[in-house]
Amino acid sequence: MKVIKFGGSSLASATQLKKVLNIVKSDQERRFVVVSAPGKRNAEDTKVTDALIKYYKSYTNGDDVTADQDWIINRYQDMVDELQLTSNIIDDIAEAIKSLAQLPIKDNDFLYDSFLAAGEDNNAKLIAEYFRKNGISARYVHPKDAGIIVSSEPGNARILPSSYDKLEKLRHSDDVLVIPGFFGVTTEGQICTFSRGGSDISGSIVAAGVKADLYENFTDVNGIFAAHPGVVENPHSIEELTYKEMRELAYAGFSVLHDEALIPAYRGKIPLVIKNTNNPDHPGTRISLEHSGASVPVVGIAADDNFASINMSKYLMNREVGFGRKVLQILEDLNIRWEHMPSGIDDLSIIVRERELTPIKEQEILSYLTRELGVDEVEIEHNLSIIMIVGENMKDHIGVTATATKALSDNHINLEMISQGSSEVSVMFVIKTEQEKEAVKSLYQAFFSPDK
Amino acid sequence: MKVIKFGGSSLASATQLKKVLNIVKSDQERRFVVVSAPGKRNAEDTKVTDALIKYYKSYTNGDDVTADQDWIINRYQDMVDELQLTSNIIDDIAEAIKSLAQLPIKDNDFLYDSFLAAGEDNNAKLIAEYFRKNGISARYVHPKDAGIIVSSEPGNARILPSSYDKLEKLRHSDDVLVIPGFFGVTTEGQICTFSRGGSDISGSIVAAGVKADLYENFTDVNGIFAAHPGVVENPHSIEELTYKEMRELAYAGFSVLHDEALIPAYRGKIPLVIKNTNNPDHPGTRISLEHSGASVPVVGIAADDNFASINMSKYLMNREVGFGRKVLQILEDLNIRWEHMPSGIDDLSIIVRERELTPIKEQEILSYLTRELGVDEVEIEHNLSIIMIVGENMKDHIGVTATATKALSDNHINLEMISQGSSEVSVMFVIKTEQEKEAVKSLYQAFFSPDK
Repeated sequence: MKVIKFGGSSLASATQLKKVLNIVKSDQERRFVVVSAPGKRNAEDTKVTDALIKYYKSYTNGDDVTADQDWIINRYQDMVDELQLTSNIIDDIAEAIKSLAQLPIKDNDFLYDSFLAAGEDNNAKLIAEYFRKNGISARYVHPKDAGIIVSSEPGNARILPSSYDKLEKLRHSDDVLVIPGFFGVTTEGQICTFSRGGSDISGSIVAAGVKADLYENFTDVNGIFAAHPGVVENPHSIEELTYKEMRELAYAGFSVLHDEALIPAYRGKIPLVIKNTNNPDHPGTRISLEHSGASVPVVGIAADDNFASINMSKYLMNREVGFGRKVLQILEDLNIRWEHMPSGIDDLSIIVRERELTPIKEQEILSYLTRELGVDEVEIEHNLSIIMIVGENMKDHIGVTATATKALSDNHINLEMISQGSSEVSVMFVIKTEQEKEAVKSLYQAFFSPDK
Repeated sequence: MKVIKFGGSSLASATQLKKVLNIVKSDQERRFVVVSAPGKRNAEDTKVTDALIKYYKSYTNGDDVTADQDWIINRYQDMVDELQLTSNIIDDIAEAIKSLAQLPIKDNDFLYDSFLAAGEDNNAKLIAEYFRKNGISARYVHPKDAGIIVSSEPGNARILPSSYDKLEKLRHSDDVLVIPGFFGVTTEGQICTFSRGGSDISGSIVAAGVKADLYENFTDVNGIFAAHPGVVENPHSIEELTYKEMRELAYAGFSVLHDEALIPAYRGKIPLVIKNTNNPDHPGTRISLEHSGASVPVVGIAADDNFASINMSKYLMNREVGFGRKVLQILEDLNIRWEHMPSGIDDLSIIVRERELTPIKEQEILSYLTRELGVDEVEIEHNLSIIMIVGENMKDHIGVTATATKALSDNHINLEMISQGSSEVSVMFVIKTEQEKEAVKSLYQAFFSPDK
């Protein structure tokens, strides 16, 4: 039993939907289809979700909404025509789109979410109808009926644990169920959307709920690349990753699937595969709890910029009981999340993301460290990047760090900091952002193209 | 103006004392001589300090102390004879040794310290006399008269800041002053000794107090070796070190000078040189605030065992504000000092010295982390060693870490953890203790004998 999720680009046109149909048809285990809103058909096109945002603005501004409604309805109409659907499906959709402009504006925390969710919701209806017309016994299921019950946090809904029991009952359905992604309903019945990557989250929740054997996430790429294609020319796609590895890669800039989307599947111990709608025979990238067998030491190289480092030194620092804890306390008091804390004997650095700092917070930190903790020197270093080489099997391969540091050194990249923890899922290097691309290239070359 | 300190082996016999005399005579800037108690003359000999401990035990047990007194007095008598001193100095010394057995035993927190300090104190008297007989205008000065005023912590005295003003007045003396090391007097006039390396501490205090241009610490080695001679065959001695580098080396097993002895000189910005009484022409190892010029990237390789690592992992750990701080708080509550805290995304290790842990504390940590902080996995790893490659100029040399990790990897040494902080005074490797010696050898070879 598989849960299969399609992204917006896989659902943008009749051509794409035909691929989707074939993918679903080709494997009887594909029983739950989670769908996004229609994406762009070409570079100039507008996503349905963006059109809904425009519609929402017109409506709340008191402007005429007819043009906005028509654009959206026509967008679905085009697909209905291209797919030669003869039913009254477009009437349902048009009605749903128009009825949004009857929702109360005042004291409605969920209005924006209701507009946004319409993109997915109506697409699911259309796709279910399309499947039915083409020999799949399919049925549209609203998240409310599926049991996707969420917290009342508009734009940032969290799944409530009770959802999973209800979702599990869907296992017994004989139909292929088509479920709109991106949103759930609150216990009061309000539409409430997930954070970014919302449809991926829905797919993950459904997969965990129905205890799927596999969660297939169809995108428009062949899987996850071992390094950013904007930096490395034609990087290969990774065959197999563990959830831990995916977390590390996602941490440092890999944005294929957001954390929020991984958690339900990870917790439910459901393997996940990233596949390409346009190339469904490609095995894609499989993400599971453990590597299936022999594996390379390094699976991927990630890099992310916009880090800063608070560097302090104090003679005899390491004799002071509680010093590190006090430093972390001040950060916590200032609501600053920190990332890493490499230390020498008399020095300590705290690596944070730039977004955690403001000029005022920086002043607070400097003054606290100098006056209260009596550090000898303190400075805040900006424009840093983190590079991570990631691989759970690293620990069985002596020399990974040697290979990495040699590659960086050969390319004249100076290491500001290094940290390799006991888990050995990754080695982290902090370097100046100006050297980031060069560093990623060097490491990719060293681990994946040693002969070039 | 120089402060010069001699250790016990430099003062063990007339032969040694003649070398000391020549050293002091050869440089008129050597104006303050801080001395230890007489050390061993050969492997079977007893140190005067150890004889004093025996004497103390006999006295406090109520045993006859005559034999103990005689042994100690004879030890000084031998030196008086060999040095052909004709004065009544031995009578003074004998009197001082005997009078220890008149000190009150009951409610006397300073009795043990008073016995111990007699080794240095009487040696200073003897040496001042010897200097006078040989053309040096020398004078014995008791720490009380010198102004070495300390806290009332027997065996662990700390210098009181007011001492420095008093010590500064000694600058104006025309004589060479001979000051016993190892102890000071409390504000109530009690003898109170420093912790281990006590005479080194005294020398450092005097150097800072009189604002010496140099603190010369004479030992029986040519300086500080770049690696442990028990591990590396004939390691070279280091020409120049900074205080920071010395701290890092001392942290990981280099025991030439204890921290306590470095602090006063460091704070007083006094350079220090470690020299060999038996080879005074050798330049020794100079320790100062900054390197004097071009220098090698790595000055030394230190290693220390008896470390443990508390390794924990928790999915999404790095999203939890305050997680690290809470971990450090529990350690602080258990009075556990920690050394380093390398982290991944979802894992964190805390490296501590084994002496900080007990089975009960380990249980407390495991149970707290599991129950209160909800970690997924936690284990405490034992039998770890820390290897440090140290050098302040490392930061100007790209590739130091690459050289080190390659050397370790070529020798099949697996890195449990790595940490290199922003100061770049050192790179730290955590490895299994069973591989420690091999690791030190590999690194010494890589940095200092690349051609072999």
